[in-house]
Amino acid sequence: MKILIVGASGTLGRAVAERLAPQHEILAAGRSSADYPVDITDDASVEALFRRTGKLDAIVSTAGVLHFGPLETMRPADFALGLNDKLLGQVRLALLGQHHLNDGGSITLTTGIVAEEPIRSGANASAVNNAIEGFVRGAAFELRRDLRINAVSPNVLTESWEAYGAFFPGFEPVTATRAALAYQRSVEGIQSGRVFKVW
Amino acid sequence: MKILIVGASGTLGRAVAERLAPQHEILAAGRSSADYPVDITDDASVEALFRRTGKLDAIVSTAGVLHFGPLETMRPADFALGLNDKLLGQVRLALLGQHHLNDGGSITLTTGIVAEEPIRSGANASAVNNAIEGFVRGAAFELRRDLRINAVSPNVLTESWEAYGAFFPGFEPVTATRAALAYQRSVEGIQSGRVFKVW
Repeated sequence: MKILIVGASGTLGRAVAERLAPQHEILAAGRSSADYPVDITDDASVEALFRRTGKLDAIVSTAGVLHFGPLETMRPADFALGLNDKLLGQVRLALLGQHHLNDGGSITLTTGIVAEEPIRSGANASAVNNAIEGFVRGAAFELRRDLRINAVSPNVLTESWEAYGAFFPGFEPVTATRAALAYQRSVEGIQSGRVFKVW
Repeated sequence: MKILIVGASGTLGRAVAERLAPQHEILAAGRSSADYPVDITDDASVEALFRRTGKLDAIVSTAGVLHFGPLETMRPADFALGLNDKLLGQVRLALLGQHHLNDGGSITLTTGIVAEEPIRSGANASAVNNAIEGFVRGAAFELRRDLRINAVSPNVLTESWEAYGAFFPGFEPVTATRAALAYQRSVEGIQSGRVFKVW
Protein backbone atom coordinates (compact mmCIF):
# COMPACT_ATOMS: atom_id res chain seq x y z
CA MET A 1 0.00 0.00 0.00
CA LYS A 2 0.92 3.64 -0.47
CA ILE A 3 0.58 5.19 2.97
CA LEU A 4 0.75 8.84 3.98
CA ILE A 5 1.81 9.48 7.58
CA VAL A 6 1.17 13.02 8.80
CA GLY A 7 3.22 13.79 11.88
CA ALA A 8 5.87 11.38 10.70
CA SER A 9 8.76 13.06 12.49
CA GLY A 10 7.10 12.78 15.92
CA THR A 11 7.76 9.93 18.36
CA LEU A 12 4.57 8.12 17.41
CA GLY A 13 4.81 8.87 13.70
CA ARG A 14 8.36 7.50 13.50
CA ALA A 15 7.29 4.29 15.24
CA VAL A 16 4.33 3.86 12.88
CA ALA A 17 6.59 4.44 9.88
CA GLU A 18 9.07 1.85 11.16
CA ARG A 19 6.27 -0.64 11.69
CA LEU A 20 4.74 -0.21 8.24
CA ALA A 21 7.83 0.50 6.11
CA PRO A 22 8.92 -3.12 5.53
CA GLN A 23 5.74 -3.92 3.61
CA HIS A 24 4.48 -0.58 2.33
CA GLU A 25 5.49 2.61 0.57
CA ILE A 26 5.62 5.35 3.23
CA LEU A 27 5.21 9.06 2.49
CA ALA A 28 6.40 10.98 5.54
CA ALA A 29 4.59 14.30 5.95
CA GLY A 30 4.74 16.90 8.66
CA ARG A 31 5.21 20.53 9.48
CA SER A 32 8.96 20.36 8.87
CA SER A 33 9.06 17.58 6.28
CA ALA A 34 11.27 18.35 3.29
CA ASP A 35 9.37 16.09 0.88
CA TYR A 36 5.81 16.48 2.14
CA PRO A 37 5.49 19.66 4.21
CA VAL A 38 2.00 20.36 5.53
CA ASP A 39 0.18 22.61 7.96
CA ILE A 40 -2.93 20.67 8.98
CA THR A 41 -4.66 23.86 10.13
CA ASP A 42 -4.79 25.16 6.55
CA ASP A 43 -7.06 23.85 3.76
CA ALA A 44 -4.74 25.01 0.98
CA SER A 45 -1.72 23.38 2.56
CA VAL A 46 -3.53 20.06 2.96
CA GLU A 47 -4.89 20.20 -0.59
CA ALA A 48 -1.36 20.89 -1.85
CA LEU A 49 -0.11 17.86 0.09
CA PHE A 50 -2.66 15.58 -1.58
CA ARG A 51 -1.82 16.95 -5.02
CA ARG A 52 1.80 16.06 -4.27
CA THR A 53 1.09 12.56 -2.96
CA GLY A 54 -1.38 11.49 -5.64
CA LYS A 55 -3.80 8.64 -4.88
CA LEU A 56 -3.23 6.85 -1.57
CA ASP A 57 -4.29 3.61 0.09
CA ALA A 58 -4.07 4.88 3.65
CA ILE A 59 -3.82 8.16 5.52
CA VAL A 60 -2.42 8.00 9.04
CA SER A 61 -2.35 11.06 11.27
CA THR A 62 -0.23 11.21 14.40
CA ALA A 63 -0.33 15.00 14.35
CA GLY A 64 -2.04 17.63 16.46
CA VAL A 65 -1.50 20.01 19.32
CA LEU A 66 -3.65 20.36 22.45
CA HIS A 67 -3.87 22.95 25.19
CA PHE A 68 -2.92 21.82 28.67
CA GLY A 69 -3.63 24.16 31.55
CA PRO A 70 -5.74 24.59 34.70
CA LEU A 71 -9.47 25.01 34.11
CA GLU A 72 -9.58 27.95 36.47
CA THR A 73 -7.42 30.14 34.23
CA MET A 74 -8.34 28.60 30.88
CA ARG A 75 -9.58 31.07 28.28
CA PRO A 76 -11.76 30.27 25.27
CA ALA A 77 -8.78 31.08 23.03
CA ASP A 78 -6.69 28.45 24.86
CA PHE A 79 -9.41 25.89 24.33
CA ALA A 80 -9.71 26.86 20.66
CA LEU A 81 -6.07 25.87 20.12
CA GLY A 82 -6.83 22.17 20.46
CA LEU A 83 -10.03 22.54 18.46
CA ASN A 84 -8.24 24.11 15.53
CA ASP A 85 -5.17 21.88 15.64
CA LYS A 86 -5.58 18.31 16.86
CA LEU A 87 -9.34 18.18 16.21
CA LEU A 88 -10.10 20.23 13.09
CA GLY A 89 -6.61 19.54 11.70
CA GLN A 90 -7.17 15.80 11.74
CA VAL A 91 -10.79 16.13 10.58
CA ARG A 92 -9.49 18.27 7.70
CA LEU A 93 -7.13 15.44 6.69
CA ALA A 94 -10.10 13.06 6.73
CA LEU A 95 -12.61 15.30 4.92
CA LEU A 96 -10.24 16.40 2.19
CA GLY A 97 -8.33 13.11 2.16
CA GLN A 98 -11.38 10.89 1.48
CA HIS A 99 -11.31 12.14 -2.13
CA HIS A 100 -7.68 11.11 -2.59
CA LEU A 101 -7.99 7.54 -1.36
CA ASN A 102 -8.29 4.51 -3.60
CA ASP A 103 -11.38 2.32 -3.09
CA GLY A 104 -11.09 0.37 0.13
CA GLY A 105 -8.56 2.82 1.57
CA SER A 106 -8.40 3.88 5.20
CA ILE A 107 -7.98 6.88 7.45
CA THR A 108 -6.47 6.50 10.94
CA LEU A 109 -6.54 9.41 13.37
CA THR A 110 -5.00 9.80 16.81
CA THR A 111 -6.88 10.43 20.03
CA GLY A 112 -5.63 9.49 23.53
CA ILE A 113 -6.42 8.05 26.93
CA VAL A 114 -7.48 11.42 28.35
CA ALA A 115 -10.69 10.98 26.33
CA GLU A 116 -11.80 8.52 28.99
CA GLU A 117 -9.49 9.21 31.91
CA PRO A 118 -9.46 12.91 32.79
CA ILE A 119 -6.23 14.38 34.12
CA ARG A 120 -5.40 17.66 35.84
CA SER A 121 -5.20 20.50 33.27
CA GLY A 122 -6.63 18.18 30.65
CA ALA A 123 -10.15 19.51 29.95
CA ASN A 124 -9.17 20.50 26.42
CA ALA A 125 -7.63 17.09 25.77
CA SER A 126 -10.72 15.31 27.10
CA ALA A 127 -12.96 17.35 24.81
CA VAL A 128 -10.79 17.12 21.69
CA ASN A 129 -10.04 13.42 22.02
CA ASN A 130 -13.71 12.63 22.58
CA ALA A 131 -14.63 14.72 19.55
CA ILE A 132 -12.22 12.78 17.35
CA GLU A 133 -13.70 9.50 18.55
CA GLY A 134 -17.23 10.77 17.91
CA PHE A 135 -16.28 11.93 14.44
CA VAL A 136 -14.73 8.55 13.63
CA ARG A 137 -17.75 6.62 14.89
CA GLY A 138 -20.13 8.79 12.86
CA ALA A 139 -18.06 9.22 9.70
CA ALA A 140 -17.41 5.47 9.39
CA PHE A 141 -21.02 4.90 8.33
CA GLU A 142 -21.03 7.65 5.74
CA LEU A 143 -17.78 6.94 3.90
CA ARG A 144 -18.30 5.61 0.38
CA ARG A 145 -16.30 3.21 -1.81
CA ASP A 146 -15.50 0.86 1.11
CA LEU A 147 -13.36 3.53 2.72
CA ARG A 148 -12.71 2.99 6.43
CA ILE A 149 -11.87 5.27 9.33
CA ASN A 150 -10.55 4.47 12.82
CA ALA A 151 -8.77 6.16 15.68
CA VAL A 152 -5.93 4.98 17.89
CA SER A 153 -6.02 6.01 21.54
CA PRO A 154 -2.61 5.52 23.15
CA ASN A 155 -1.79 5.83 26.81
CA VAL A 156 0.97 8.35 27.62
CA LEU A 157 4.08 7.25 25.76
CA THR A 158 7.16 5.94 27.53
CA GLU A 159 9.18 8.31 25.36
CA SER A 160 7.12 11.29 26.59
CA TRP A 161 7.18 10.27 30.23
CA GLU A 162 9.93 12.67 31.25
CA ALA A 163 8.04 15.63 29.78
CA TYR A 164 4.44 14.67 30.68
CA GLY A 165 4.64 11.97 33.32
CA ALA A 166 3.80 14.38 36.13
CA PHE A 167 0.33 14.87 34.59
CA PHE A 168 -0.29 11.11 34.55
CA PRO A 169 0.16 9.83 38.11
CA GLY A 170 -0.26 6.06 38.25
CA PHE A 171 -0.74 5.72 34.50
CA GLU A 172 1.14 2.90 32.81
CA PRO A 173 3.09 4.34 29.88
CA VAL A 174 3.29 2.39 26.62
CA THR A 175 6.14 2.44 24.14
CA ALA A 176 5.58 4.07 20.76
CA THR A 177 6.53 0.73 19.22
CA ARG A 178 3.63 -0.94 20.99
CA ALA A 179 1.21 1.87 20.09
CA ALA A 180 2.30 1.52 16.45
CA LEU A 181 0.75 -1.95 16.36
CA ALA A 182 -2.71 -0.43 16.67
CA TYR A 183 -2.09 1.73 13.60
CA GLN A 184 -1.14 -1.41 11.71
CA ARG A 185 -4.38 -3.07 12.84
CA SER A 186 -6.32 -0.09 11.54
CA VAL A 187 -4.48 0.12 8.19
CA GLU A 188 -4.25 -3.56 7.36
CA GLY A 189 -7.38 -4.82 9.17
CA ILE A 190 -11.04 -4.74 8.14
CA GLN A 191 -12.65 -2.72 10.93
CA SER A 192 -14.13 0.77 10.68
CA GLY A 193 -15.52 3.25 13.20
CA ARG A 194 -13.34 1.74 15.90
CA VAL A 195 -11.19 3.33 18.58
CA PHE A 196 -8.19 1.08 19.17
CA LYS A 197 -7.07 1.60 22.74
CA VAL A 198 -3.45 0.98 23.66
CA TRP A 199 -3.79 0.85 27.45
CA MET B 1 -31.61 30.12 43.08
CA LYS B 2 -30.74 32.74 40.50
CA ILE B 3 -30.49 30.83 37.22
CA LEU B 4 -29.27 32.03 33.84
CA ILE B 5 -30.69 30.17 30.85
CA VAL B 6 -28.84 30.79 27.59
CA GLY B 7 -30.95 29.82 24.60
CA ALA B 8 -34.07 30.60 26.58
CA SER B 9 -36.24 31.37 23.57
CA GLY B 10 -35.64 27.99 21.94
CA THR B 11 -37.97 25.01 22.36
CA LEU B 12 -35.77 23.40 24.99
CA GLY B 13 -34.87 26.63 26.74
CA ARG B 14 -38.51 27.61 27.14
CA ALA B 15 -39.36 24.21 28.63
CA VAL B 16 -36.45 24.45 31.08
CA ALA B 17 -37.53 27.95 32.09
CA GLU B 18 -41.09 26.74 32.66
CA ARG B 19 -39.84 23.86 34.77
CA LEU B 20 -37.58 25.98 36.97
CA ALA B 21 -39.53 29.24 37.15
CA PRO B 22 -41.94 28.28 39.97
CA GLN B 23 -39.08 27.93 42.46
CA HIS B 24 -36.27 30.04 41.07
CA GLU B 25 -35.40 33.41 39.62
CA ILE B 26 -34.88 32.91 35.87
CA LEU B 27 -32.75 35.17 33.68
CA ALA B 28 -33.61 34.42 30.06
CA ALA B 29 -30.67 35.05 27.73
CA GLY B 30 -30.23 34.45 24.04
CA ARG B 31 -29.25 35.90 20.72
CA SER B 32 -32.48 37.89 20.44
CA SER B 33 -33.23 38.44 24.12
CA ALA B 34 -34.19 41.98 25.01
CA ASP B 35 -33.00 41.79 28.62
CA TYR B 36 -29.99 39.51 28.29
CA PRO B 37 -28.76 39.48 24.68
CA VAL B 38 -25.68 37.34 24.07
CA ASP B 39 -23.62 35.93 21.24
CA ILE B 40 -21.96 32.82 22.68
CA THR B 41 -19.30 32.84 19.96
CA ASP B 42 -17.85 36.08 21.31
CA ASP B 43 -15.86 36.51 24.54
CA ALA B 44 -16.79 40.17 24.96
CA SER B 45 -20.49 39.48 24.51
CA VAL B 46 -20.43 36.68 27.10
CA GLU B 47 -18.43 38.79 29.56
CA ALA B 48 -20.94 41.61 29.09
CA LEU B 49 -23.77 39.18 29.83
CA PHE B 50 -22.18 38.12 33.13
CA ARG B 51 -21.58 41.73 34.13
CA ARG B 52 -25.29 42.29 33.53
CA THR B 53 -26.47 39.22 35.46
CA GLY B 54 -24.21 39.59 38.48
CA LYS B 55 -23.48 36.51 40.60
CA LEU B 56 -25.46 33.39 39.70
CA ASP B 57 -26.29 30.05 41.26
CA ALA B 58 -26.69 28.15 38.01
CA ILE B 59 -25.89 28.57 34.34
CA VAL B 60 -27.93 26.48 31.90
CA SER B 61 -27.14 26.44 28.21
CA THR B 62 -29.59 25.11 25.65
CA ALA B 63 -27.84 27.05 22.88
CA GLY B 64 -25.65 26.11 19.98
CA VAL B 65 -25.69 25.45 16.26
CA LEU B 66 -24.32 22.39 14.46
CA HIS B 67 -23.58 21.60 10.84
CA PHE B 68 -25.65 18.85 9.25
CA GLY B 69 -24.62 17.61 5.83
CA PRO B 70 -23.25 14.59 3.94
CA LEU B 71 -19.69 13.63 4.80
CA GLU B 72 -18.81 13.35 1.14
CA THR B 73 -19.27 17.05 0.49
CA MET B 74 -18.43 18.34 3.97
CA ARG B 75 -15.71 21.00 4.06
CA PRO B 76 -13.51 21.87 7.04
CA ALA B 77 -15.30 25.24 7.24
CA ASP B 78 -18.66 23.45 7.57
CA PHE B 79 -17.27 21.33 10.39
CA ALA B 80 -15.82 24.42 12.07
CA LEU B 81 -19.32 25.88 12.38
CA GLY B 82 -20.33 23.39 15.06
CA LEU B 83 -16.94 23.68 16.75
CA ASN B 84 -17.21 27.44 17.08
CA ASP B 85 -20.87 27.56 18.00
CA LYS B 86 -22.35 24.62 19.95
CA LEU B 87 -18.96 23.40 21.26
CA LEU B 88 -16.76 26.43 21.90
CA GLY B 89 -19.81 28.62 22.55
CA GLN B 90 -20.96 26.42 25.42
CA VAL B 91 -17.41 25.88 26.68
CA ARG B 92 -17.00 29.68 26.66
CA LEU B 93 -20.08 29.99 28.89
CA ALA B 94 -18.52 27.46 31.27
CA LEU B 95 -14.96 28.85 31.29
CA LEU B 96 -16.00 32.47 31.73
CA GLY B 97 -19.07 31.62 33.77
CA GLN B 98 -17.23 29.69 36.49
CA HIS B 99 -15.98 33.01 37.86
CA HIS B 100 -19.51 34.42 38.14
CA LEU B 101 -21.04 31.52 40.08
CA ASN B 102 -21.62 31.50 43.80
CA ASP B 103 -19.98 28.66 45.75
CA GLY B 104 -21.76 25.39 45.08
CA GLY B 105 -23.23 26.68 41.81
CA SER B 106 -23.68 24.61 38.69
CA ILE B 107 -23.22 24.67 34.94
CA THR B 108 -25.44 22.56 32.67
CA LEU B 109 -24.63 22.22 28.98
CA THR B 110 -26.54 20.54 26.17
CA THR B 111 -25.30 17.67 24.05
CA GLY B 112 -27.55 15.14 22.25
CA ILE B 113 -28.21 11.55 21.30
CA VAL B 114 -26.11 11.77 18.13
CA ALA B 115 -23.06 11.65 20.43
CA GLU B 116 -23.72 7.94 20.78
CA GLU B 117 -26.07 7.12 17.93
CA PRO B 118 -24.67 8.39 14.62
CA ILE B 119 -27.13 9.55 11.98
CA ARG B 120 -26.80 10.34 8.27
CA SER B 121 -25.20 13.78 7.78
CA GLY B 122 -24.40 13.89 11.47
CA ALA B 123 -20.60 13.59 11.68
CA ASN B 124 -20.27 17.13 12.99
CA ALA B 125 -22.98 16.52 15.59
CA SER B 126 -21.32 13.29 16.72
CA ALA B 127 -17.98 15.06 17.15
CA VAL B 128 -19.32 18.18 18.85
CA ASN B 129 -21.66 16.37 21.24
CA ASN B 130 -18.91 13.95 22.23
CA ALA B 131 -16.56 16.86 22.81
CA ILE B 132 -19.04 18.55 25.14
CA GLU B 133 -19.43 15.33 27.13
CA GLY B 134 -15.65 14.92 27.33
CA PHE B 135 -15.25 18.49 28.50
CA VAL B 136 -17.90 18.03 31.18
CA ARG B 137 -16.35 14.80 32.46
CA GLY B 138 -12.90 16.38 32.64
CA ALA B 139 -13.85 19.82 33.91
CA ALA B 140 -15.99 18.42 36.74
CA PHE B 141 -12.84 17.35 38.61
CA GLU B 142 -11.09 20.68 38.23
CA LEU B 143 -13.85 23.07 39.23
CA ARG B 144 -13.24 24.78 42.57
CA ARG B 145 -15.56 26.03 45.32
CA ASP B 146 -17.90 23.00 45.03
CA LEU B 147 -18.97 24.12 41.57
CA ARG B 148 -20.55 21.39 39.47
CA ILE B 149 -20.91 20.77 35.74
CA ASN B 150 -23.15 18.35 33.84
CA ALA B 151 -24.59 17.87 30.38
CA VAL B 152 -28.04 16.87 29.24
CA SER B 153 -28.30 14.66 26.17
CA PRO B 154 -31.84 14.68 24.79
CA ASN B 155 -33.19 12.50 22.03
CA VAL B 156 -34.68 14.38 19.07
CA LEU B 157 -37.50 16.56 20.42
CA THR B 158 -41.12 15.90 19.60
CA GLU B 159 -41.40 19.60 18.80
CA SER B 160 -38.56 19.32 16.24
CA TRP B 161 -39.84 16.14 14.66
CA GLU B 162 -41.41 17.81 11.65
CA ALA B 163 -38.16 19.60 10.81
CA TYR B 164 -35.62 16.88 11.71
CA GLY B 165 -37.53 13.61 11.97
CA ALA B 166 -36.33 12.41 8.57
CA PHE B 167 -32.75 12.31 9.93
CA PHE B 168 -33.84 10.14 12.88
CA PRO B 169 -35.55 7.04 11.45
CA GLY B 170 -36.86 4.81 14.24
CA PHE B 171 -35.79 7.21 16.98
CA GLU B 172 -38.28 7.82 19.75
CA PRO B 173 -38.76 11.58 20.15
CA VAL B 174 -39.09 13.08 23.63
CA THR B 175 -41.03 16.18 24.58
CA ALA B 176 -39.12 19.28 25.63
CA THR B 177 -41.08 19.11 28.88
CA ARG B 178 -39.64 15.68 29.61
CA ALA B 179 -36.12 16.74 28.63
CA ALA B 180 -36.45 19.71 30.98
CA LEU B 181 -36.58 17.33 33.94
CA ALA B 182 -32.95 16.39 33.34
CA TYR B 183 -31.90 20.04 33.58
CA GLN B 184 -33.71 20.23 36.90
CA ARG B 185 -31.83 17.13 38.09
CA SER B 186 -28.57 18.79 37.14
CA VAL B 187 -29.36 22.17 38.70
CA GLU B 188 -30.99 20.99 41.93
CA GLY B 189 -29.17 17.67 42.37
CA ILE B 190 -25.72 16.89 43.74
CA GLN B 191 -24.03 15.15 40.81
CA SER B 192 -21.17 16.48 38.70
CA GLY B 193 -19.41 15.28 35.55
CA ARG B 194 -22.55 13.45 34.48
CA VAL B 195 -24.31 13.23 31.14
CA PHE B 196 -28.04 12.93 31.80
CA LYS B 197 -29.55 11.05 28.90
CA VAL B 198 -33.18 11.61 28.01
CA TRP B 199 -33.75 8.59 25.74
